[in-house]
Amino acid sequence: MSIDDIATKVSKWFQDSGQSCEIIISSRIRLARNLSNHLFTTHCSNREKEIIVSKLREAILKTSIGSISEYVDISSASQLQKELLIERHLISTHLCKGQGPRAAIISKDEVFTAMLNEEDHLRMQAILPGLQLKECWELINRIDTEIEKQVSFAFDQHLGYLTACPTNVGTGIRVSLMLHLPALKMTNQIEKLLNATKEMKLAVRGLFGEGTDALGDFFQISNQITLGIKEEQIIEKLAENLIPKIVEYELVARDHLLKHQNNLLEDKVYRAKGILENARLISSKEALFLLSNLRLGINLGKIKDVAISTINELFMLTQPAHLQKNAGMSLSPSERDELRAKIIRNKLNMRKP
Amino acid sequence: MSIDDIATKVSKWFQDSGQSCEIIISSRIRLARNLSNHLFTTHCSNREKEIIVSKLREAILKTSIGSISEYVDISSASQLQKELLIERHLISTHLCKGQGPRAAIISKDEVFTAMLNEEDHLRMQAILPGLQLKECWELINRIDTEIEKQVSFAFDQHLGYLTACPTNVGTGIRVSLMLHLPALKMTNQIEKLLNATKEMKLAVRGLFGEGTDALGDFFQISNQITLGIKEEQIIEKLAENLIPKIVEYELVARDHLLKHQNNLLEDKVYRAKGILENARLISSKEALFLLSNLRLGINLGKIKDVAISTINELFMLTQPAHLQKNAGMSLSPSERDELRAKIIRNKLNMRKP
Repeated sequence: MSIDDIATKVSKWFQDSGQSCEIIISSRIRLARNLSNHLFTTHCSNREKEIIVSKLREAILKTSIGSISEYVDISSASQLQKELLIERHLISTHLCKGQGPRAAIISKDEVFTAMLNEEDHLRMQAILPGLQLKECWELINRIDTEIEKQVSFAFDQHLGYLTACPTNVGTGIRVSLMLHLPALKMTNQIEKLLNATKEMKLAVRGLFGEGTDALGDFFQISNQITLGIKEEQIIEKLAENLIPKIVEYELVARDHLLKHQNNLLEDKVYRAKGILENARLISSKEALFLLSNLRLGINLGKIKDVAISTINELFMLTQPAHLQKNAGMSLSPSERDELRAKIIRNKLNMRKP
Repeated sequence: MSIDDIATKVSKWFQDSGQSCEIIISSRIRLARNLSNHLFTTHCSNREKEIIVSKLREAILKTSIGSISEYVDISSASQLQKELLIERHLISTHLCKGQGPRAAIISKDEVFTAMLNEEDHLRMQAILPGLQLKECWELINRIDTEIEKQVSFAFDQHLGYLTACPTNVGTGIRVSLMLHLPALKMTNQIEKLLNATKEMKLAVRGLFGEGTDALGDFFQISNQITLGIKEEQIIEKLAENLIPKIVEYELVARDHLLKHQNNLLEDKVYRAKGILENARLISSKEALFLLSNLRLGINLGKIKDVAISTINELFMLTQPAHLQKNAGMSLSPSERDELRAKIIRNKLNMRKP
């Protein structure tokens, strides 16, 4: 993988496989770690940041994932490169907006990412399509162990791993799933879901995590508690209890729509198709909404001549940075809207005789 | 013609012929007359209204248009029949909502209508497609003369024809044109047009005349002044001066859009096409907007596989009363939206291989 190559492809985590993949887009686990004997990133000098990056880079590249990973110096990366990685959910805006030495190490299949000098010295994530929390955990836990053999992490016997923000102290784990819940949205049950998840100590966020709105019926659901509970327990509770319940709610809502509001459902789905196939200007926000509706239509068997893989490709490749990277030039918002509409239109009309 | 037959056909006045028909949908002239020696309709007893209807019916059916016209007793007509005639712009809601004996006489080609006991004893209209004010005037003036040979109209040497509302006194003429002005709307110049027409003593109304909004970029423009000016002068001023100016403004605006905002224009047009071809529920208001955009696309050469006659047919036949009349049953609003979408979809997709 090279940053310059990825923009034409769909990330592995967005390729609709794994359990319940018609509702669960992806599973993600991240761990927050800090080197002992160093100040937290916020209090570091650039010199100290450089040492942290250097130590972690060396350690990570020596792990079993190191040989298939690429090191990206974020402090020298272009704005477009950074936005591309954000759009692929590989790095955070926090890392991009930071100051001084900071980097990312990304495996070629994009399943594993390590961010160096983000809020914590090290933030690692494993991301896979569908419900694959255990697989994510196996991977990230293995790499974490391999790294810990080489460096010393800040750890307290009583508290566990120490982190820059107290909400991450303990396991430093954040388990999150990206869910596609259009039927709960259409049947006005999202509020109910939000209340339920709050009671279950889960956080619900938008497509790009903290501080972003839920766009196009996509929701990120993650654990809030990192302290006083084992990683495996958090994962098991989510994977075997809470998430299957939400999936079940969505399935019931879809069934209800099919039985009692089929017209409304078909109108939504076919309108989306009609606009996507015909519009000449589409904003990224509108694309997300319309592709979300089309995805629902495919999953409910209403649309048979469009593949989910086509939808995923359009979702990913029509994002602003992807568009510009693949066009090989900087584009104004209206030029992007035009190109986005053209790509979507051509792709969807391609399947026609 | 029988009321029961017309619902499947497009009125002659809506068939895109005549001068400037890509912008001027129709030309219409109406005359207001009252029988002398009778109270105005508002002050009549039902007995007197009956006499008025009877006198006028006899006189009109004896004119040269009488033999190809049908008498419709509005006081005994069903709600659906009345709505059907309103949707075809043949009678007014005022006539339908009235009390006591009242009627309409409608020529088989729907070009001529007489309403008996509307606001005035007699309101006649001639309506033709495109800019055909002179043709309308020739027809209605001839019939008016033929009627006046048989009955005596309330007439004052100084004021002219007397009418129930003083705004019609004098000639009793209202000359109006229905214009399709999507480019002026898109380029935010409608306000400017409204101000200009006000100065020219013209009134601008919506699709169904007084008190209705302009829907889907359709505007009715008519003279305000009926007193102290000859009918021919009013018509000539409109036909040769004012209306061609408005048509010119619209053409300039269309040209501007083609040259400078082609993307925005195509987006509007193709989106409309995409939605009309795919939606499963369309309200009559939305249909009007979308068909209006599609009409613009056809007139600008963007859409080549849909005929204007198809648009006109869909405009007319998907109106609520038309839908129900042709379905042979009463339909709820949501059933109508469903049927409307189906008719539009089938018609637009028919042309495909």
